[in-house]
Amino acid sequence: MEWEAIQKRLNDLLEKGRHGELRGAMMMLNEVDIAQYMEGLDKEKLLLVFRILPKDISADVFSYMSDEQKQTLIESIGDQEIRALIDDMFLDDAVDFLEEMPSSVVRRVLQTTDTEKRNLINQFLRYPDNSAGSLMTIEYLEFFSDVTVRGAMDIIRREGLDKETIYTLYIVDSTHHLIGTLALRRMILASEDTVLSDIMDRNPVFVHTLDDQEKVAEVVRHYDLMAIPVVDKEDRLVGIITADDIMDVIEEETTEDFEKMAALTPSDDEYLKTSPFKLALNRIPWLLVMAIIAIFTGLIITQYEDVLQATGSVGIILTSCIPMLMDTGGNCGAQSSTLIIRGLSLGQITLKDFFKALWKEFRVAVIVGAVLFVFTLFRVKFINPLFMEDGSGITWAVAFVVAAALFGTIMLAKALGCAMPMLAKRLKLDPALMASPMITTVVDMSSLFIYFSIAKAVLKI
Amino acid sequence: MEWEAIQKRLNDLLEKGRHGELRGAMMMLNEVDIAQYMEGLDKEKLLLVFRILPKDISADVFSYMSDEQKQTLIESIGDQEIRALIDDMFLDDAVDFLEEMPSSVVRRVLQTTDTEKRNLINQFLRYPDNSAGSLMTIEYLEFFSDVTVRGAMDIIRREGLDKETIYTLYIVDSTHHLIGTLALRRMILASEDTVLSDIMDRNPVFVHTLDDQEKVAEVVRHYDLMAIPVVDKEDRLVGIITADDIMDVIEEETTEDFEKMAALTPSDDEYLKTSPFKLALNRIPWLLVMAIIAIFTGLIITQYEDVLQATGSVGIILTSCIPMLMDTGGNCGAQSSTLIIRGLSLGQITLKDFFKALWKEFRVAVIVGAVLFVFTLFRVKFINPLFMEDGSGITWAVAFVVAAALFGTIMLAKALGCAMPMLAKRLKLDPALMASPMITTVVDMSSLFIYFSIAKAVLKI
Repeated sequence: MEWEAIQKRLNDLLEKGRHGELRGAMMMLNEVDIAQYMEGLDKEKLLLVFRILPKDISADVFSYMSDEQKQTLIESIGDQEIRALIDDMFLDDAVDFLEEMPSSVVRRVLQTTDTEKRNLINQFLRYPDNSAGSLMTIEYLEFFSDVTVRGAMDIIRREGLDKETIYTLYIVDSTHHLIGTLALRRMILASEDTVLSDIMDRNPVFVHTLDDQEKVAEVVRHYDLMAIPVVDKEDRLVGIITADDIMDVIEEETTEDFEKMAALTPSDDEYLKTSPFKLALNRIPWLLVMAIIAIFTGLIITQYEDVLQATGSVGIILTSCIPMLMDTGGNCGAQSSTLIIRGLSLGQITLKDFFKALWKEFRVAVIVGAVLFVFTLFRVKFINPLFMEDGSGITWAVAFVVAAALFGTIMLAKALGCAMPMLAKRLKLDPALMASPMITTVVDMSSLFIYFSIAKAVLKI
Repeated sequence: MEWEAIQKRLNDLLEKGRHGELRGAMMMLNEVDIAQYMEGLDKEKLLLVFRILPKDISADVFSYMSDEQKQTLIESIGDQEIRALIDDMFLDDAVDFLEEMPSSVVRRVLQTTDTEKRNLINQFLRYPDNSAGSLMTIEYLEFFSDVTVRGAMDIIRREGLDKETIYTLYIVDSTHHLIGTLALRRMILASEDTVLSDIMDRNPVFVHTLDDQEKVAEVVRHYDLMAIPVVDKEDRLVGIITADDIMDVIEEETTEDFEKMAALTPSDDEYLKTSPFKLALNRIPWLLVMAIIAIFTGLIITQYEDVLQATGSVGIILTSCIPMLMDTGGNCGAQSSTLIIRGLSLGQITLKDFFKALWKEFRVAVIVGAVLFVFTLFRVKFINPLFMEDGSGITWAVAFVVAAALFGTIMLAKALGCAMPMLAKRLKLDPALMASPMITTVVDMSSLFIYFSIAKAVLKI
């Protein structure tokens, strides 16, 4: 059935007050879809549908709801309901949820949960934002290494229900140090009397609680893991992070890169749900910074007034090529910086490759520059005069000035596009800040300077 | 131990010909790390190390090697070795590998493998690039619905070793139609006599063989799946795709978006491994297209020659503000288009939201435009004269012309930045093509037109 038909049917049952049937219909759906359906409901209906939901999936559905709807719901339901909800949620989902709520909601939720859960949540809320600790869950299965496969299976059957994953077993010593991991599949294929220490992987990949989520994502992606254990400063196992949470991290980090590369202040909010005022606020700072830098670009033009006012239509031709020069410079810089920034963030390029990359960009710039040099030389000489009343001023020398300035601009743009992101990384800044807008602004200034210098030298203005 | 220390130790053992110890040392490492170590070896050493590798992991290590090293290796080893290697690889890894190889290598590999495997590989190679069919693997476990938990566990123990995942069981009817899925964890927690049909999920999420990988990634991400079943036109189960392969797809698609947004022809090759000539080839087409469009921008300047040659330093002031106007327009367009493109690709914005998004951008543009209007008005009136010999020509009217043109440019840039990616999507083009470079080029032309029209009207030139 199509999604719209499903929505229509659910709405229909809701309108007519046929709650039993509605509950039945929702039982047929995936939790993600139910959450999506509830997204469109107003406060009253939201509360009604939430109470109609089968109890065993309501915490799951809640995890998938948007922050706005979560908040609306929490503010409408009673303490008992909140307590039941938080109890049924996985700890990492509960923590994620509370991190996004205003403090009044957090306080109310923490007041209603029992002491043990509250202490755990508080402990998790203390991990720095975007650290492995803030992402991890404590719902994993931990075993001693002398347990047999049979014994382990019994433990899984007894305790596995509440665990986020049972597909990797974590093996610790008596002081909770992680000494190995074991894939469930490997265990199932082993004989029942085997001891876990005989089949476990003794070199498990792990991260520390304070590691940045970007690093965690990199490790998980590098080793194709489904879950990764997290250890504290003393190398004791304190949690795991599962691959689905890592996918969310990768998505978030990538969006942040896109935003920074477009001169936006990064924001976690969905576009359509953000107010115009907030959106504007995310955009103004960098625009102002770049508008201030552009003042200097303007000054260069003022300084070379004589070149642009040159007689016999030469001045106007030179002026009319400024946009092309600036755009090509900006685009060339964007091409280089994008490849370098992406390469750095995927770990395919490291700071050690600085000169290798620069040398590569140099050769690319020579090829690209040569092609555009030839194109520009002929287009200025032969196409521009077609659109002018008196094109006699456009000599080969004028065409050469434009083409040569373009070549110089391309060389410079490629060099800066390559060097600036890597220098930013060296200075522990995010390379993504050195993307197209920033590089365009810097290249503009230098390209105009190159342009006017060549014009003065060649045309003797 | 640090990665560099590990590499040094392995190199040491290799140099000294201590092959037994080298094999032992490699047994302690993850397959991904071994592949990374082999990356740095020349042809002879590569072959030697590959032959030293424990046989049971050599196919895995091979899967993680770079395409260049794979090709080098295949060209060095004998038919027997190729056959053993391909036999040990998961089908999807083998197909991925062959897709990247030159046809001579593909022919040689197919000649050496047995008929059954060859037929399967050939069938997979026929799925369109980037389709679900080309991504899927056939190493999954399939069950009939009347099997008991005990029976299923026996099958898993007997056949699970060669399967890519045993954590989801796929349940089919007698004609191989997918009728349900069952998480292994759910089965383990059920009693041994339960029949699978009683506990299976009867509404499994699935994709079709011809679905695009982007769609597959979206579904997997949306439902937080670890693996997704793939069915053919007749809804028969033919394969599964696992989450680790999906992560690679997401990475690939994101890189493609980054590249398109920077006016690059997308390429699968790693930056440092691509020749300057190939890199240049990926960059030149869009640069030429945009250089051609920029001719028209230049024409607008030629047409308004009189404005720029206006007396009393007004002309030169107006000229000197062109870069600022163009840059700000480009940057504003980039901000809007980036948010829209990213929103479209994450499914947070759909074509139905066209007017909603446009109205939002309109309001954002008014706020951003107003702030930059005020900034520009004062900076042209008070800052620019400081750098000029005779600043008397800069009246409030001149400052107003620049600021008003900037406001108009911002309005236009935001509107185009929002509309163009969505129109591209409507026309079944990739929205990422309508990013900063394209929008900058279009906005430039219109912003100069606005600029000169306002100047003519206000300053009566």
